[in-house]
Amino acid sequence: MRILMIGAGGVGDAAARIAVERDFFEQLVVADYDLGRAEATVTAATARRDGEQRLVAARVDASDAEAVAALAREHGSTHVFNAVDPRFVMPIFRGALAAGAGYLDMAMSLSRRHPDEPYAKVGVKLGDEQFAMTSQWEESGRLALLGMGVEPGLSDVFARYASDHLFSSIDELGTRDGANLAVYDEDGNETFAPGFSMWTIIEECLNPPVVWEKARAGGDVEAGFFTLPAFSEPEVFEFPEGIGPVECVHVEHEEVLLMPRWLDAERVTFKYGLGDELITILRTLHTLGLDGTDPVRVKGVEVSPRDVVAAVLPDPATIGPRMKGKTCAGVFVTGTGKDGQPRRTYLYHVSDNEETMAEYGAQCVVWQTAVNPVVALELMATGVWQGSGVLGPEAFDAQPFLELLAAPKPVGYGSPWGMEDR
Amino acid sequence: MRILMIGAGGVGDAAARIAVERDFFEQLVVADYDLGRAEATVTAATARRDGEQRLVAARVDASDAEAVAALAREHGSTHVFNAVDPRFVMPIFRGALAAGAGYLDMAMSLSRRHPDEPYAKVGVKLGDEQFAMTSQWEESGRLALLGMGVEPGLSDVFARYASDHLFSSIDELGTRDGANLAVYDEDGNETFAPGFSMWTIIEECLNPPVVWEKARAGGDVEAGFFTLPAFSEPEVFEFPEGIGPVECVHVEHEEVLLMPRWLDAERVTFKYGLGDELITILRTLHTLGLDGTDPVRVKGVEVSPRDVVAAVLPDPATIGPRMKGKTCAGVFVTGTGKDGQPRRTYLYHVSDNEETMAEYGAQCVVWQTAVNPVVALELMATGVWQGSGVLGPEAFDAQPFLELLAAPKPVGYGSPWGMEDR
Repeated sequence: MRILMIGAGGVGDAAARIAVERDFFEQLVVADYDLGRAEATVTAATARRDGEQRLVAARVDASDAEAVAALAREHGSTHVFNAVDPRFVMPIFRGALAAGAGYLDMAMSLSRRHPDEPYAKVGVKLGDEQFAMTSQWEESGRLALLGMGVEPGLSDVFARYASDHLFSSIDELGTRDGANLAVYDEDGNETFAPGFSMWTIIEECLNPPVVWEKARAGGDVEAGFFTLPAFSEPEVFEFPEGIGPVECVHVEHEEVLLMPRWLDAERVTFKYGLGDELITILRTLHTLGLDGTDPVRVKGVEVSPRDVVAAVLPDPATIGPRMKGKTCAGVFVTGTGKDGQPRRTYLYHVSDNEETMAEYGAQCVVWQTAVNPVVALELMATGVWQGSGVLGPEAFDAQPFLELLAAPKPVGYGSPWGMEDR
Repeated sequence: MRILMIGAGGVGDAAARIAVERDFFEQLVVADYDLGRAEATVTAATARRDGEQRLVAARVDASDAEAVAALAREHGSTHVFNAVDPRFVMPIFRGALAAGAGYLDMAMSLSRRHPDEPYAKVGVKLGDEQFAMTSQWEESGRLALLGMGVEPGLSDVFARYASDHLFSSIDELGTRDGANLAVYDEDGNETFAPGFSMWTIIEECLNPPVVWEKARAGGDVEAGFFTLPAFSEPEVFEFPEGIGPVECVHVEHEEVLLMPRWLDAERVTFKYGLGDELITILRTLHTLGLDGTDPVRVKGVEVSPRDVVAAVLPDPATIGPRMKGKTCAGVFVTGTGKDGQPRRTYLYHVSDNEETMAEYGAQCVVWQTAVNPVVALELMATGVWQGSGVLGPEAFDAQPFLELLAAPKPVGYGSPWGMEDR
């Protein structure tokens, strides 16, 4: 396997540091708009293993499908791994197809709200543009694996696992994400610094959240999607391993679009433990119009307000040393167990910042996002996961993924997951 | 009197519409960085009076003292009226002095916080840079009248009036500002839109608020100034004429710096009825760093985050038609009355948006700010207010000001003020 990774931000950098410990690939090209950033990632990751020579840095414009394809061809890349923010999904996706490479991402093509009833009906959904190209990927015989980070990604793997091994019928597949992370400034005061791209947080939290309900679908998966107002149906969810209760609200997320295509459930939801402070911040940004992406004219220059918001905050890749706490990703599954009895089970994965910083020099949110696509690439490289077309993580057998993730090093990735019946 | 007004924003535009009804001046040059804006003000104001020919539009860079001086000389201006935001105080102030003209503004030169103890000690105070040039103004024989809007301005006039006519000794001169204004979008939904420059709101609300206490001064006025954390000492103040109770907090404001220089009181404070929503917005902007003025690099361009915040919000000059409610400015004076009995009196001026829109096509907050400097200019033109050097409104007799403001048109400005003993 020869990988072209686009993006050396927090997640790309952590993915390189994780991948370098594994033997499944021959080459990893780390490409970024900022060549210096790509080079820094290659240097840091290479230093983690004696004699390592598989990593190469390159410059790429992720908005240019031709440039992505040309770079993949130049390096004979068999797989393009998209590790930039979701604005660039389509050019990278098209570039990989044009180059005859496989493709993997951690977020899907962006949604556009319904023009008349944005908080009731779906418009263009997350991933619609990618699924529209399914036949082209099938004809190419290549696999495009969408949404293969932690959420979406590991959450979808959990859902498939629950569906295969734990439940005979499922009421709800409810992804629930929460954390007790805190970031401190140089003086030791707690400060606001999001764990991943503020651009993406705004995008997913202020878009109308999407929910899927079988009863609305009448056998037609497409018919079951609908939307709600932002921050709907707040629910206090109890997270494991000392994180405790966190208020969660509906958020637009890929799991809701992916799971119903392959798994049988009455309802599919995603709720994110945003917490009061972040909800207030997002509401305020929206009130002021600072969440907008259309450029505004400011003293002779044009900028997108949302880009300015992202620019004034600390780079998520740099906050690890000043952060404390754990983040938890998982799926709360309710329904009927294999034994015919009611069952409520939370399948989860916790990432502790102290551990990921010590072991990888990566903060826990980006590390947790980065480890899962590397595991998936390894399963693809070894032929355990095979397929063609445009597929989600739940289209594949979950068991080998969860085994490889949890198995101690050097066999696996040494990152155990948990399960709690409630 | 030949006036050069710098700035045709909301306040400048309203001031021109108000002034054009009066006979005390021979010329009013309306100058703005955007000549089209200056021309629009001249056109609108001129249309309000038959045969009006005293208004002229010009372009000026308010950050360039030489350009201000040159424009004043070109038009033989006797008075420079500064109606732009406080960043431009010093170049306009210097430009007026260089041109041998008088000067009037509505906000003073900016403060800089104490480097070590910003929330306890003052650093460079509001107006310090201007007062430092007092001897030059005295030598020129010209008057620079600082802080002559509504707050500061009318509030300082009220304080002087209370000191001269109502009280034998004063415990506190407490400026209290509140409103029940609401702005509606095109669909009739209430929306967020500040009544004056968001740049200035951020500046005054997030700077450490300043308070003056005689007990700390020991006879030395300079020694009595100290600072508090932002949003300190919240207090619910009852505003008159149906506005009702509004939560007020300490805010850095010119009155606190001006009043102790001329009036005797134990304490001088300024509290602003920000309301929950604006406090949350300001706290959030500060948390995110969007209140900052240092340029940040965003996708190849440099912008100041605070300029972006101001740019995404509606222009305060344009919201009048979509606004409802009243705004109230005043001073709550406590102490001992002329009769030797304890006295608590609120002297105030209310501006109703419906009335100012109907009469002047100006929203009430900018109209209320604009009417007071025009009254002051008239008192200077007619020789009722005379002086030289750098002075605040409380250095002059308050009675003729309050009479001219309240007297029905065409004798006065037809805008009554009120007084409530509590």
